[in-house]
Amino acid sequence: MSTLGLIEYEHAGPEVRAVYDDIMATRKTDWINNFWKAIAHDPVTLKRTWESIKQIMGPGALDPLTKELIYVAVSVANNCHYCIASHTASAVRKGMTLEMFKELQAVIGMAAETNKLVTGYRVEIDKQFELPFGVAK
Amino acid sequence: MSTLGLIEYEHAGPEVRAVYDDIMATRKTDWINNFWKAIAHDPVTLKRTWESIKQIMGPGALDPLTKELIYVAVSVANNCHYCIASHTASAVRKGMTLEMFKELQAVIGMAAETNKLVTGYRVEIDKQFELPFGVAK
Amino acid sequence: MSTLGLIEYEHAGPEVRAVYDDIMATRKTDWINNFWKAIAHDPVTLKRTWESIKQIMGPGALDPLTKELIYVAVSVANNCHYCIASHTASAVRKGMTLEMFKELQAVIGMAAETNKLVTGYRVEIDKQFELPFGVAK
Amino acid sequence: MSTLGLIEYEHAGPEVRAVYDDIMATRKTDWINNFWKAIAHDPVTLKRTWESIKQIMGPGALDPLTKELIYVAVSVANNCHYCIASHTASAVRKGMTLEMFKELQAVIGMAAETNKLVTGYRVEIDKQFELPFGVAK
Amino acid sequence: MSTLGLIEYEHAGPEVRAVYDDIMATRKTDWINNFWKAIAHDPVTLKRTWESIKQIMGPGALDPLTKELIYVAVSVANNCHYCIASHTASAVRKGMTLEMFKELQAVIGMAAETNKLVTGYRVEIDKQFELPFGVAK
Amino acid sequence: MSTLGLIEYEHAGPEVRAVYDDIMATRKTDWINNFWKAIAHDPVTLKRTWESIKQIMGPGALDPLTKELIYVAVSVANNCHYCIASHTASAVRKGMTLEMFKELQAVIGMAAETNKLVTGYRVEIDKQFELPFGVAK
Repeated sequence: MSTLGLIEYEHAGPEVRAVYDDIMATRKTDWINNFWKAIAHDPVTLKRTWESIKQIMGPGALDPLTKELIYVAVSVANNCHYCIASHTASAVRKGMTLEMFKELQAVIGMAAETNKLVTGYRVEIDKQFELPFGVAK
Repeated sequence: MSTLGLIEYEHAGPEVRAVYDDIMATRKTDWINNFWKAIAHDPVTLKRTWESIKQIMGPGALDPLTKELIYVAVSVANNCHYCIASHTASAVRKGMTLEMFKELQAVIGMAAETNKLVTGYRVEIDKQFELPFGVAK
Repeated sequence: MSTLGLIEYEHAGPEVRAVYDDIMATRKTDWINNFWKAIAHDPVTLKRTWESIKQIMGPGALDPLTKELIYVAVSVANNCHYCIASHTASAVRKGMTLEMFKELQAVIGMAAETNKLVTGYRVEIDKQFELPFGVAK
Repeated sequence: MSTLGLIEYEHAGPEVRAVYDDIMATRKTDWINNFWKAIAHDPVTLKRTWESIKQIMGPGALDPLTKELIYVAVSVANNCHYCIASHTASAVRKGMTLEMFKELQAVIGMAAETNKLVTGYRVEIDKQFELPFGVAK
Repeated sequence: MSTLGLIEYEHAGPEVRAVYDDIMATRKTDWINNFWKAIAHDPVTLKRTWESIKQIMGPGALDPLTKELIYVAVSVANNCHYCIASHTASAVRKGMTLEMFKELQAVIGMAAETNKLVTGYRVEIDKQFELPFGVAK
Repeated sequence: MSTLGLIEYEHAGPEVRAVYDDIMATRKTDWINNFWKAIAHDPVTLKRTWESIKQIMGPGALDPLTKELIYVAVSVANNCHYCIASHTASAVRKGMTLEMFKELQAVIGMAAETNKLVTGYRVEIDKQFELPFGVAK
């Protein structure tokens, strides 16, 4: 049970409703998932988090699906079960196929394994890996 | 300093050299990075890890660059500094632009933040997020 | 279900009861939460853990509420769901208000985000941050 | 070496300089630490991160020092070495004494230990810990 | 509920059945646990993961029980609740006694605590700890 | 550089010297590693941590080498580089061979990988894994 409970639209104040409305409009859905209802107790955090997500997850040099796959990967690495469920669903909506899902999981698992081999063997960084984009201007 | 030191090509036995040769051929490079030289003390792990990576990171439903971005994301989430450096460099070789790098980092940071808000507020999973691909057949 | 089950007061031996009694006396409560009942199968660990917590969490240079907030923060960072629930409740008992709870979560989330930006961009430590208390005497 | 290098004030564009100026004015210092210089390659992330930190870390129900202690705790839990160094220094500037530092570390270590005992023994959440603030209105 | 659902033996294709058969034969059991049924949607990952586990977890310089204890320790450190449950059960089958279980948990907890003290105090590595096996040949 | 610097034997007070003496006597060595010198600024934490480690890491149902392997595994999982170096060296002193080291790392890596596959596929715990030691008495 969420620590503070969930704030439903009908019990929300105008600040919270404005964010809920924008979430639904942006996502073209008619419902709000629990994350937003849980943090709506703190309208400042609600608004800041939504504005940040909207800014970051929209199209850019990376397309929205790729961003969603990265979001799932981080959430799996961080063991956020809610986030895994919500962003996996979100990735499916944005076009993630079953094949993509499986490959995503395989990459996450593989990375976790080599992350640990590197750490346990105490591997030092090759100098060739420094400044991959060249010298910053 | 890597716990067991690094095994250079000229001091490697035939099993290790075979893997080194395949790494260089597959990647079209003429050098081997420290990770492989560090784990080469265990030729079985060296071979299994390389075979797995080759299988997983090749083209599939996800293209190699997308997989590399996911690899970087997991490595950042897991704090593997070597892996961050090596896979960032690898992503650049596969086409990651500076803009993509910046968006990647922003998504990783954002995911880490919401992962913690979800966890601290103890948000429960919406039933709508279950079985995102529908009922398995 | 806890791996070994829970040891209730009435089934506990004298060593375990002595710790349970001290917990209830120290906390001015009449019940024992599951954590202690779960680890009571190992009376040595039970006693050592309780003695350590009593020593560490009491008043000092930091007041008990501040310590509890820090405990919650670490538990959220470490994804310990039981600990988040128990120490959030404990913090409320020690005076954490709803406003404090929300600010606590916002700080945890913010720290998690910048932790990852730092890691992904591979930022080096400024020399000004070394020895913040000056040279040790 | 930071992946993209550091952007010094004299090479920064107007957007970045505006943030740098605000950081120095807000913190009443005349220098910018590496974190900001590293992410300044992405002015949008720089600005958003700074605005968020300024909003979150200022005085509120929790005082700035308490927030800084929480920031250090999360950074230690998350193994962000840069963040540990920078926020420990920042906490000292805001009044953290040596005694407070030691107690902070002891609490972080203790929490990490009990987090793992809880996890390894698979302890279930006591129903008494639900809704610590009562039913949300 | 597992994201893709579970693939039972009777609905599995020949590739998956071959792995299931080998798991049951190797483990001398007549059932398959959920992990394999969940990842069986990706027969390549199923096969690779099983082959790797069979290779790694068999007798060697470390006996199978010791390997299982290490597996539990990593799973606790990584907060994988399923893995903690499954590998604790597996360790019991391989001979872990109740006393061993308790000592295992105590070591995991202690390591987690000192890991954090080291990190928070920013302790540097003693040169005596480098190359513990001497110079690699 | 350790946050508070290191306290050498010759500058230590009697409380700290008593712990240093016990460490050297118990370990049959004539030096103190940096961890203890770093936390010696807090003699209470120094003493409590040493007493706990001495109690936990001594012979019991698990032998000291097995405990040390578990300690390394947790430290790798938790990314504590100092702890990896110090406990790997310690394990070597207690009899860890090169073969054991390699198998240890392979198990850690494998566990990390399956931990993530389990998490990403959201696998539910089989009821057969509950109460592995039977019903607690």
